[in-house]
Amino acid sequence: MAVLTPRATDFPRWYQDVLAKAELADNGPVRGTMVIRPYGYALWERMQADVDARIKAAGAVNAYFPLFIPESYLRREAEHVEGFSPELAVVTIGGGKELEEPVVVRPTSETVIGEYLAKWTQSYRDLPLLLNQWANVVRWELRPRLFLRSSEFLWQEGHTAHADEADAAAYARRIAREVYRDFLTDVLAIPVFVGAKTRRERFAGATNTVTCEGMMGDGKALQMATSHELGQNFARAFDIDFLGADGARHLAWTTSWGCSTRMVGGLIMAHGDDNGLRIPPRLAPTQVVVLPVRDDDAVVAAARELATALTAAGVRTQLDARPGLSFGRRVTDAEIKGIPVRVEVGPRDLAAGNATLARRDNSTKSPVALAEVSTRVPALLDEVQAALFAEALELRESRTADVGTLADAAAAAQTGFARIPWRLVGEEGEARLTQDALSIRCLQTPDGAVPAAGDQGDDLVALVARSY
Amino acid sequence: MAVLTPRATDFPRWYQDVLAKAELADNGPVRGTMVIRPYGYALWERMQADVDARIKAAGAVNAYFPLFIPESYLRREAEHVEGFSPELAVVTIGGGKELEEPVVVRPTSETVIGEYLAKWTQSYRDLPLLLNQWANVVRWELRPRLFLRSSEFLWQEGHTAHADEADAAAYARRIAREVYRDFLTDVLAIPVFVGAKTRRERFAGATNTVTCEGMMGDGKALQMATSHELGQNFARAFDIDFLGADGARHLAWTTSWGCSTRMVGGLIMAHGDDNGLRIPPRLAPTQVVVLPVRDDDAVVAAARELATALTAAGVRTQLDARPGLSFGRRVTDAEIKGIPVRVEVGPRDLAAGNATLARRDNSTKSPVALAEVSTRVPALLDEVQAALFAEALELRESRTADVGTLADAAAAAQTGFARIPWRLVGEEGEARLTQDALSIRCLQTPDGAVPAAGDQGDDLVALVARSY
Ligand SMILES: [Zn+2]
Ligand SMILES: [Zn+2]
Repeated sequence: MAVLTPRATDFPRWYQDVLAKAELADNGPVRGTMVIRPYGYALWERMQADVDARIKAAGAVNAYFPLFIPESYLRREAEHVEGFSPELAVVTIGGGKELEEPVVVRPTSETVIGEYLAKWTQSYRDLPLLLNQWANVVRWELRPRLFLRSSEFLWQEGHTAHADEADAAAYARRIAREVYRDFLTDVLAIPVFVGAKTRRERFAGATNTVTCEGMMGDGKALQMATSHELGQNFARAFDIDFLGADGARHLAWTTSWGCSTRMVGGLIMAHGDDNGLRIPPRLAPTQVVVLPVRDDDAVVAAARELATALTAAGVRTQLDARPGLSFGRRVTDAEIKGIPVRVEVGPRDLAAGNATLARRDNSTKSPVALAEVSTRVPALLDEVQAALFAEALELRESRTADVGTLADAAAAAQTGFARIPWRLVGEEGEARLTQDALSIRCLQTPDGAVPAAGDQGDDLVALVARSY
Repeated sequence: MAVLTPRATDFPRWYQDVLAKAELADNGPVRGTMVIRPYGYALWERMQADVDARIKAAGAVNAYFPLFIPESYLRREAEHVEGFSPELAVVTIGGGKELEEPVVVRPTSETVIGEYLAKWTQSYRDLPLLLNQWANVVRWELRPRLFLRSSEFLWQEGHTAHADEADAAAYARRIAREVYRDFLTDVLAIPVFVGAKTRRERFAGATNTVTCEGMMGDGKALQMATSHELGQNFARAFDIDFLGADGARHLAWTTSWGCSTRMVGGLIMAHGDDNGLRIPPRLAPTQVVVLPVRDDDAVVAAARELATALTAAGVRTQLDARPGLSFGRRVTDAEIKGIPVRVEVGPRDLAAGNATLARRDNSTKSPVALAEVSTRVPALLDEVQAALFAEALELRESRTADVGTLADAAAAAQTGFARIPWRLVGEEGEARLTQDALSIRCLQTPDGAVPAAGDQGDDLVALVARSY
């Protein structure tokens, strides 16, 4: 086929090739910005719908806050302004005039939402106040990479206020688990390590950050979603206080959490192979493509009938009978786009009363009676979903090594994850890892759970890796 | 009740009161920007889902283009830059440095999408190319008004390229009809005049603009959605050309079309009354609220059962049994939020085996047997939907006058729409109307259809009104 650079030859170039050939995204005209093409956007749209339903199930409601934030807001929380200053885009001209106070294009909405949380939080009865928004944000990017690091990206950001620390922490962790981890594993078929960030890697202003880290096809880590406990830092900066049941005023405890179009990049790199994307069926905008092998009336009619039956069976189906495109070319197209299952019908299949089911994940083909296609396919889609997860899990297991020294961790992290006792690393060891372009992706308890108290705990395990 | 300024006393203040009391929106910290609160966003979210499905049914696909546009792009189409220059927000600092070329925050994406349409349009086989995007846009606003005119707003913008003029025009009109008109009338229950804009009122760079104009509760017009034929203006400016079946290169014909969060403002002003919002049931995030009259175990249990049965019947239902809030206060809340139907249950109802159904639109109440609530309510919701449309239509008919002179048009337009032959107005008369803060909302054929050729035609009728 040779339309894509093989992954083993040059993984980053393979990634670029997939973006172009699968028509996922393109560079925008302003450096670092991104055009999300229809197929790439369809993937995002389906991610968005699923994550949105999970967020609503967790009790949060959507709202929308302004793109423009007064510069002064960012300065109120010291770590926050430090964290974001180098990445800001600033509007200085509005309506044809120089603005008296320049406004910042939101890099995240902590500060502006903090201002309104304060307004809406009067009594303990108003808490917890659970908000989410879907929006674009801007962080000026000098080394952009489509979907992974772009000056503008799309995301969801949840912001909540709680009456006490325990409730805030429990909610932030619930989101990490029930929204992010479950979505990533059950829909994207990407196994993730869920753990706490070290102080060094935490969100600017957070007291604890829980992260979901996936392993990409090249063994590097990708941070796929994060959930932050913000303590009372933002509540103090924005005066988010409330009248308690005790009649006294108290500062609230806040959280924030987000996932972004970066997940599209993760999807590509976790499952893609040398023939292109492999989209897990639960996410796939098109789960099945029906391909007539030849431009022959009887064959095309049979293909059309199959497509109709599959659609009626609730399968997201497309018929690709584009004239003037060879069967081989249409197969390649479906492969590059990662469509989970192809139903191929040719004159010989028809004569035998059959069609051929071709799996994208493992390239196996099997004949099936025409009448059974629409009952067989849904089960096959479940098999593909499970197989993609199993394959990703196997890759991760084969590339995760338990080590006992920092040097061994650095060596193992060249190809995957190294698990090392956190007490053997410490903040000093962590600083040394960065010199080899390595980082601690997260800290877990020995049995792989999220630590109860951030980076504190004698028996914590650090996961070291290269990362995007 | 007296929580809202009566509409007859001060309509703009009534509008502000509704925004605040129904918790729809708030001013953002930067002048002209808007915070859309959860209830307001839920209305928008449901509008978005319905319009999105209609756009997809019309064959367009979603994509996403960058927020930032190089200044130079806007200059390529002369009328376009003229139309938007005074409203632009300009980023001059990015990543801590002065930018070499300032970038504009998109006021609309015609220009950047034009650039990519040119790239993706190679052959006649690529056409029509039908794109849509959901995004925020910025037009610096000196006299902002929440939902109606804000510096940042949310919208959808469709952009399409076609092989010939007829196909482009037919598609732009199809969108006006099947997406906008049908959504506005069938879901928002707002009757709209669909017609062509005059040259003066057209979109900057369009050869024809088809608009949907609704009448608000104060008799003013609101432009609720527009669909533009752009001729070859943008195709020429951005070089959107293609190799025809004839082997020669041709310029494409483009269209663009949009609707925005402005529709939320329209919804408020078209249906709201002195007690608050009245949301048409097909749109309503909550169609029915079940209210126990008293905080009594048996009553609350019966209310809970009704809510469960209604939800199971596919009705979007909420139970409002908030302790510490009187029944009267909970009724007022439901009224202000415009929830179409209340199901009220008190001890006396229970004793009689009944509940009370209260309609928001006309304040009528009727008893219904408990066992019949969940079958009666869906039919009642349809009645409310139809009644709101009928009421809006009646208002419009009672306030639309056929007139024969410009002076009479100006007089009639003080309270509603004036219909006047376009040839009696002309561009000169139109200019005069603007001095009285009036405008021609659209031109129609005598039977109320969209003119075949924009503002050309001897028998066209002009609709004159005050407007938002
Ligand atoms: Zn407060
Ligand atoms: Zn071209």
